[in-house]
Amino acid sequence: MPTTTWNRHHILSLADFTPIEYDTVLKTAASFREVLSRRTKKVPALQGQVVANLFFEPSTRTRSSFELAAKRLSADTLNFTSATSSMTKGETILDTAKTYLAMGCDIMVIRHKEAGVPNAIASELDRLGERVSVLNAGDGQHEHPSQGLLDLFTICTLIDPLEPRLELLQGKKIAIVGDILHSRVARSNIWSLTASGAEVHLAAPPTLLPKWFADFVNDEDITGEGEAVAKEVFVPSPIPKRKLFIHWNLEPALRDADFVMTLRLQKERMTANLLPSLREYHQLFGITRSQIKHCQPHVKVLHPGPVNRGVEISSDLMDDPEFSLIQTQVTSGVAVRMALLYLIGSGKATG
Amino acid sequence: MPTTTWNRHHILSLADFTPIEYDTVLKTAASFREVLSRRTKKVPALQGQVVANLFFEPSTRTRSSFELAAKRLSADTLNFTSATSSMTKGETILDTAKTYLAMGCDIMVIRHKEAGVPNAIASELDRLGERVSVLNAGDGQHEHPSQGLLDLFTICTLIDPLEPRLELLQGKKIAIVGDILHSRVARSNIWSLTASGAEVHLAAPPTLLPKWFADFVNDEDITGEGEAVAKEVFVPSPIPKRKLFIHWNLEPALRDADFVMTLRLQKERMTANLLPSLREYHQLFGITRSQIKHCQPHVKVLHPGPVNRGVEISSDLMDDPEFSLIQTQVTSGVAVRMALLYLIGSGKATG
Amino acid sequence: MPTTTWNRHHILSLADFTPIEYDTVLKTAASFREVLSRRTKKVPALQGQVVANLFFEPSTRTRSSFELAAKRLSADTLNFTSATSSMTKGETILDTAKTYLAMGCDIMVIRHKEAGVPNAIASELDRLGERVSVLNAGDGQHEHPSQGLLDLFTICTLIDPLEPRLELLQGKKIAIVGDILHSRVARSNIWSLTASGAEVHLAAPPTLLPKWFADFVNDEDITGEGEAVAKEVFVPSPIPKRKLFIHWNLEPALRDADFVMTLRLQKERMTANLLPSLREYHQLFGITRSQIKHCQPHVKVLHPGPVNRGVEISSDLMDDPEFSLIQTQVTSGVAVRMALLYLIGSGKATG
Repeated sequence: MPTTTWNRHHILSLADFTPIEYDTVLKTAASFREVLSRRTKKVPALQGQVVANLFFEPSTRTRSSFELAAKRLSADTLNFTSATSSMTKGETILDTAKTYLAMGCDIMVIRHKEAGVPNAIASELDRLGERVSVLNAGDGQHEHPSQGLLDLFTICTLIDPLEPRLELLQGKKIAIVGDILHSRVARSNIWSLTASGAEVHLAAPPTLLPKWFADFVNDEDITGEGEAVAKEVFVPSPIPKRKLFIHWNLEPALRDADFVMTLRLQKERMTANLLPSLREYHQLFGITRSQIKHCQPHVKVLHPGPVNRGVEISSDLMDDPEFSLIQTQVTSGVAVRMALLYLIGSGKATG
Repeated sequence: MPTTTWNRHHILSLADFTPIEYDTVLKTAASFREVLSRRTKKVPALQGQVVANLFFEPSTRTRSSFELAAKRLSADTLNFTSATSSMTKGETILDTAKTYLAMGCDIMVIRHKEAGVPNAIASELDRLGERVSVLNAGDGQHEHPSQGLLDLFTICTLIDPLEPRLELLQGKKIAIVGDILHSRVARSNIWSLTASGAEVHLAAPPTLLPKWFADFVNDEDITGEGEAVAKEVFVPSPIPKRKLFIHWNLEPALRDADFVMTLRLQKERMTANLLPSLREYHQLFGITRSQIKHCQPHVKVLHPGPVNRGVEISSDLMDDPEFSLIQTQVTSGVAVRMALLYLIGSGKATG
Repeated sequence: MPTTTWNRHHILSLADFTPIEYDTVLKTAASFREVLSRRTKKVPALQGQVVANLFFEPSTRTRSSFELAAKRLSADTLNFTSATSSMTKGETILDTAKTYLAMGCDIMVIRHKEAGVPNAIASELDRLGERVSVLNAGDGQHEHPSQGLLDLFTICTLIDPLEPRLELLQGKKIAIVGDILHSRVARSNIWSLTASGAEVHLAAPPTLLPKWFADFVNDEDITGEGEAVAKEVFVPSPIPKRKLFIHWNLEPALRDADFVMTLRLQKERMTANLLPSLREYHQLFGITRSQIKHCQPHVKVLHPGPVNRGVEISSDLMDDPEFSLIQTQVTSGVAVRMALLYLIGSGKATG
């Protein structure tokens, strides 16, 4: 394992990640990806430590990915899901977290349907002077930092498999398409990708964009021919040169794009009036073979999964290894989560 | 562990199992049963490998049995059950399987309420050139091969504990009683037991037999005194001498039987008109002390569990160790599943 | 680990625990608490053994606590919860337990909503001549012995961290407050605390006391000024000097108390007419800063969790480390459960 300096105790958001931190995660994940290609995929790095997966919202892939990452670092795991919990008995979330703290867990991986829960738990642990780390595994519509980092790792390793690093994305055009409004994945990716110096282009129907984006898109910007609206957005940040463009049409976002990230349409969260129909959504914002002709010939498509086939992306494109990085993202997920658990866990050991 | 040749990559069905394969499983399971009698019941055979239990249908014993088998081979396990999964979010089963594939699972143990799902996943993995193995843990009314093999192992070890092998069943009479129509356990057992050269006698009410069996049972075969109908059925197979007899009454199936397998009555699947009442079913097809008097004195009774006491079998007979092999079947299950995981996992290592 | 004599095969109740057994548990748990303060918190004591957590009633903390204790002893664990089980298929509880027995589990940790289930399973295992141990993790309103022991350990280690032992509680006054009627925690604590020679004072509204306590409380004992009713109760037991006092008011139970245990109000189990309102309950029996002024200045408050904040205890008192032992109880829980699994598991090894 690489010897690196890592001072971050909790991983809650990518908003204040520094370029050095991004590069440390990428480098560490690359070394774990190498471990995963061996016959024996385990390392003893976190032996004797306990990783508690506290999932107050159900999840297949993220929970399994963290569990597998922890096991491959030789940690013990405890799984908590709200369905089989005391939450029905009226205990507060903070009390549940403190119970796992008192049991002696070293790292808590927390998912919750409300934004801010992992932060609140982390703050409380800090206030109590505890050394337990919190890893945000998705909180409401706020952030999903490990997803943002695995997407970053997936893209960077495609460009340079041996030495993935942030600067590789300088000047690349990346489109993020779909339900931006409800997407914690989009939030985390906007932070990491703009930090890299890439041009990030969001494309969504106006009803699926956060309200604060409206400040950057005025009615008069829409041309008569349905041409795209694009504006440069400067995000307040220690990292210069963040560039974010917003479009109400798909085509200008895709034009000459190097990478396209399409987002899951959260059917279960959306009310009917945000969207006329799934069919119309697919016609306007679905990624298909015909649509990606606007992109660079080498374009690759990402999706955080699970995919609604034929809605966000056409089924054949999703399964085409020439264009789809969806399986690679899942594989990257285990390596990146091993890296995060390792960096947090080792940081604690030397602290 | 025995050094054996094993070329089968997936275990989906017993229909095309060869005598050598049966004997390899029996021999390997016997060596693991010896391991399980030691104080430390673990071997490092699959250290660093990951076994994913993908149970799209709930199960107590089969899931726990596979999980324990995997842990005793020192594999890591991931449990997926549909209740806490993305299936509610609209992802396809194939996509779920591919997600676990991309995470780096080595073996997928799959149960699904629809026949053919494990085969479909295995085909897709093969098409993709992946080396991950699929083990069918029960698919709809199709097959349950690990149950068929553990039943075979249970019977053979009773005859020769040190060297269980297929030929031991040559000429034995084995009755399979009950809900043949809905039973994947019956399907798998019919393949393994007929392959051994045993005489397999099915007994069920006509409504609980598959329609294709009707070809072998004609009205004129029913004698005036309610005597049994029996016909020899030749199954197309590379294995000669498969003998299958079908009865609409219990008694002729039990007559001089060496082993009786009674099947779970799938109460939750059956519609009312297949069966007048549980009470009448028990009177006609329930295995009781009085019924087993028709069998050989040394007869043993099996049931795949969970048992509806007083329906498929009388409660006192089930608990009588002189006749009941039900507990032994569960114990055999762990040894046989260790054998299957080991044979598949080791095959992969050398491939 | 200490070399101790331990002959108890199952842990079902504290009713017949001997002083030597209490002291052995306390001493063993103290040595494990020391293990838990190390960086690597695992010991190989139960390597190769299997602990099955059979939870027929959902639970967060107790299930996780046992699972973690087992993993820290290097045992493998199997989790069973009724939600994903065969119970819906009509199998009896005893048959479920026998299935896990036949799989080769070494220890069964059992929780059930009905009193007596763990005892029934233990009796059946003994009748069958099996060496598998049963550990009662809470059965209906009967007992929760591991909770009683962890409460005892929490109190004793506060008095003497290095050598916790039963005699330290001699002459201490301990109040148990709240829903005694429905509380298995109260039952177990009454046995352990009276065995120590402490004065145990129960305080509850008459509707939340078991009926048999009414024999000890007569109408004429209630004074005109609402003064407390207290009676000494002699429990038939091999341990002399058991003292139990019963109060219908909070104040006399708290007066000069060294420790106050407040019980969870089982909202979901209670019918409306046992209690006017949660608000009134809190006013009469809730533990608050103003109420604990009646106690010794060094008083500490315990609660088995999960807590209904503002009902059984005021929120600020619960979070005040000067008074609250609630987090310490959870930490003690892991050490005590390691001790119980170790004592049972090692006893089996030498038997």
